[in-house]
Amino acid sequence: YGKNTIKFLRLHREGKKHFVKEVEVCAHLRLTSPQEYLEGNNSLVIPTDTIKNIVLVLAKKNGIPSLEQFAIDICNHFMTTFCQVAYVKTYVQEVPWQRLYEDGVPHIHSFICVPDGIRFCEAEQCRNGPLVVFAGIKDLKLMKTTQSGFEGFYKNEHTTLPERHDRILCGELFCKWSYGECKDLDFNCIWKKIRECILEAFAGPPDCGEYSPSYQKTVNSIQMLVLSRVSQVQVIEAVLNNTFYNVVDMKNLGLTNDKEVLVPVEAPYGSCACTLGRK
Amino acid sequence: YGKNTIKFLRLHREGKKHFVKEVEVCAHLRLTSPQEYLEGNNSLVIPTDTIKNIVLVLAKKNGIPSLEQFAIDICNHFMTTFCQVAYVKTYVQEVPWQRLYEDGVPHIHSFICVPDGIRFCEAEQCRNGPLVVFAGIKDLKLMKTTQSGFEGFYKNEHTTLPERHDRILCGELFCKWSYGECKDLDFNCIWKKIRECILEAFAGPPDCGEYSPSYQKTVNSIQMLVLSRVSQVQVIEAVLNNTFYNVVDMKNLGLTNDKEVLVPVEAPYGSCACTLGRK
Amino acid sequence: YGKNTIKFLRLHREGKKHFVKEVEVCAHLRLTSPQEYLEGNNSLVIPTDTIKNIVLVLAKKNGIPSLEQFAIDICNHFMTTFCQVAYVKTYVQEVPWQRLYEDGVPHIHSFICVPDGIRFCEAEQCRNGPLVVFAGIKDLKLMKTTQSGFEGFYKNEHTTLPERHDRILCGELFCKWSYGECKDLDFNCIWKKIRECILEAFAGPPDCGEYSPSYQKTVNSIQMLVLSRVSQVQVIEAVLNNTFYNVVDMKNLGLTNDKEVLVPVEAPYGSCACTLGRK
Amino acid sequence: YGKNTIKFLRLHREGKKHFVKEVEVCAHLRLTSPQEYLEGNNSLVIPTDTIKNIVLVLAKKNGIPSLEQFAIDICNHFMTTFCQVAYVKTYVQEVPWQRLYEDGVPHIHSFICVPDGIRFCEAEQCRNGPLVVFAGIKDLKLMKTTQSGFEGFYKNEHTTLPERHDRILCGELFCKWSYGECKDLDFNCIWKKIRECILEAFAGPPDCGEYSPSYQKTVNSIQMLVLSRVSQVQVIEAVLNNTFYNVVDMKNLGLTNDKEVLVPVEAPYGSCACTLGRK
Repeated sequence: YGKNTIKFLRLHREGKKHFVKEVEVCAHLRLTSPQEYLEGNNSLVIPTDTIKNIVLVLAKKNGIPSLEQFAIDICNHFMTTFCQVAYVKTYVQEVPWQRLYEDGVPHIHSFICVPDGIRFCEAEQCRNGPLVVFAGIKDLKLMKTTQSGFEGFYKNEHTTLPERHDRILCGELFCKWSYGECKDLDFNCIWKKIRECILEAFAGPPDCGEYSPSYQKTVNSIQMLVLSRVSQVQVIEAVLNNTFYNVVDMKNLGLTNDKEVLVPVEAPYGSCACTLGRK
Repeated sequence: YGKNTIKFLRLHREGKKHFVKEVEVCAHLRLTSPQEYLEGNNSLVIPTDTIKNIVLVLAKKNGIPSLEQFAIDICNHFMTTFCQVAYVKTYVQEVPWQRLYEDGVPHIHSFICVPDGIRFCEAEQCRNGPLVVFAGIKDLKLMKTTQSGFEGFYKNEHTTLPERHDRILCGELFCKWSYGECKDLDFNCIWKKIRECILEAFAGPPDCGEYSPSYQKTVNSIQMLVLSRVSQVQVIEAVLNNTFYNVVDMKNLGLTNDKEVLVPVEAPYGSCACTLGRK
Repeated sequence: YGKNTIKFLRLHREGKKHFVKEVEVCAHLRLTSPQEYLEGNNSLVIPTDTIKNIVLVLAKKNGIPSLEQFAIDICNHFMTTFCQVAYVKTYVQEVPWQRLYEDGVPHIHSFICVPDGIRFCEAEQCRNGPLVVFAGIKDLKLMKTTQSGFEGFYKNEHTTLPERHDRILCGELFCKWSYGECKDLDFNCIWKKIRECILEAFAGPPDCGEYSPSYQKTVNSIQMLVLSRVSQVQVIEAVLNNTFYNVVDMKNLGLTNDKEVLVPVEAPYGSCACTLGRK
Repeated sequence: YGKNTIKFLRLHREGKKHFVKEVEVCAHLRLTSPQEYLEGNNSLVIPTDTIKNIVLVLAKKNGIPSLEQFAIDICNHFMTTFCQVAYVKTYVQEVPWQRLYEDGVPHIHSFICVPDGIRFCEAEQCRNGPLVVFAGIKDLKLMKTTQSGFEGFYKNEHTTLPERHDRILCGELFCKWSYGECKDLDFNCIWKKIRECILEAFAGPPDCGEYSPSYQKTVNSIQMLVLSRVSQVQVIEAVLNNTFYNVVDMKNLGLTNDKEVLVPVEAPYGSCACTLGRK
């Protein structure tokens, strides 16, 4: 049980310059005894209202140097404070405020919301077990308008899809990875580096791109690049939810449509997922 | 990988009387080899477009006698047709069309959408493993305006919640259960019976209700009643996402509010989950 | 300016039997002077927080005998209390809680949310003008699986739609109507009667239905029936957002699909709107 | 009547460099006769399917140099082609794809979705009337963490809001403006300039900001700056939906919270709207 979507803003000031971190936190516990379920005995139950208070107090005391550190702080607090807690799991997601710029000049206290991929993390711990930390990005929508195809697939009497060597590849990406030993990691820096790897592996070189033979291969390329470039990542999971774009058939309308006008097909949508670790 | 939200309507006619079943299907596969991820070799890949075609063909051929039977049909088809499929999972969700009544008379071909709890099911199978079938209900919003409290809970310096012995209990319920051997089950009949158990356990007797000492205990009561009444259910999972209702403090406004005006608190919200099986 | 989505529950008790009315209120004002916009002078501005307080106080004092009466109460309060208010508009929408039944027996304090068409109303008044009251229903999803066609329409070189005399008619309906003189109206009773008219005009007789030559004609039939049966309605607006269902072409898959399997087309969707009054 | 959410992507290629414009179009018509409503006579009705075809054909033939020009093209087509059209209104909204950059280098065919304010436009025309063009931005979420207050407002017995001279100002902005004579306007350039005006007026100078005495005054400042800087704008409407941030009271928790931890209040939310034109 626990509390979901604890939303708050942590404001940090350095002189007249302001820094904001707005987050949404979920914190879940499992207790050592299920007596509140079975007997209605609440004596060990930490109310979800108290969970919320603790999250806010930790934000006040520690600030949010990184989402990951904040998730770790919450786990540590519950494990060290409450002996009736057998397991704790924390999820932290960021509201993507970015500092506003006017003519290239950063504003000291104004911000704009830019949701081009949402950063999140998780931390979980069993009593007497290790603290495990995950980080990730979600709702990252990417598109490449060529250098993508799908050919040589399995065919039978239910196959109607034609082979295509030049199609649009578009999808919403979810990536989540685990860290090993979390001592002295610069979580903010690593996260930015991984985001860059993802974009690079998706798009390929800026001047020519790189051919993708399937959504699956693109997912794998993203994972391989992250694992090769970022040694702190142990396992990486990636899910790509595709939006197909159908070339509109304009023959009936007396026109030849050379992949200039396409309509997105939002339902049904394909999805592929893969989890990759190190040997 | 697979195809999500394959939406379609299956229309069945008996003379002039029409029956509709509109569903949303997700079908996911895992293949015996990951060569399409690692090498970009698509030769074993069944396109998600073909998956969609198969789902539609099965709906045409078999109809949808029950969501569960349809999910089983899909699993069976993939397992028996494609030797490269190592695992298949199917999710089927119903659009809650109900026959329209005029003055108590059922209409032969008109329907109204009544989303008071969405029926869904899942079926999954590993090659050489058993077919496992789940059914469930989600988005079921229930409220009782008394016979609910929360007292005797654990307190420390972060506790600000007062004890309450008469509060509103309101939440959105998700229940999912597994069946054992699925031969000759009347899935539609069982599902209706379970829904009634859930409502009865939540609300208690119509003339007086039953006191709930916590959300957790209510969740447990629901599970216990289902397990005791419906022998085909093996394991039942329940999640209750609570909406708290705060009694508005009207002292500053010169009024005494005897729990007459309350405001819902939608974020953060509490959640409790429990999975219960048989010995 | 004003306050939107003021959500609250009004609980009414008669002995052990409870009655709930949960609503969402928006209340907007226009002041006689725009000095807060132009000069930043707030001296006439009633804070939106005060607007919220007033709505809650009126709910406490008057209860909510009907949405319409409550909207009228709010308008009256602002007009009579604040001479700086030039115009007030109130919108009230209901959360569709219904009493729970167990084996046909009504429960004294348990409720289930059944969103099969949302009831709402509006009231507005200019200083020195009449109070105008609207009521309506929205998010009402209806379907008929035959007795619908679309033929004889205008054609040119951009027309690819075939004529059809037997299709599914499905859509989400929005209806809003105005009342004339509001003295002694039983708003709850009238609303229920109008809802029944809408369903009847949409579906036709239960044993055979009634042919609809277009969405437009169905919209008109609904309006005509309401105006003819409910004398208190002066003007009625209706908007029908259609979902088309395409019959899946299964020729390539070796099957004949006699309108048994259809897929909904959610985007783009057609829409038709009409406003009809009395002579 | 008409067609809503006609979604498509227009791909334009210059050598190996690709340009995308993905839009969502709504096109509505009013015919000279309501005979399809009253008599079920469809002979003048242009099917919404044909409307969709026409939009796609125009996209293929003309491309989308700007949303506004495309909306004008659609209006012109309906007015000149169909004499039974009495009125046409078009709405065009952009999916915010931005070219992907790798280390500062633009990618030739890869894009990322960055929804930091959605661009849209409208064009409408009555037969024998002028073509009127609107443009706008919506879903633009902005925040300033100081230089905002609300004092000196009207108070009575229902007022509980304290005066505040240093609060967070946060909201979602909607702006829509009309152009006069549309000949030779560079719609893309003007739109960007107006967006910059909005941000500048909201935030004030980057090194110190500018005090806002109310949401209303901020709305007015935005409008005034746009009207003064962009001569092509005739009338500008702005709506600001506020999210209040409450400073969490931590006294009970033994802490002093100097506006460091705040929780957003999403419902109810305040709203202010103003329309401003030239003399």
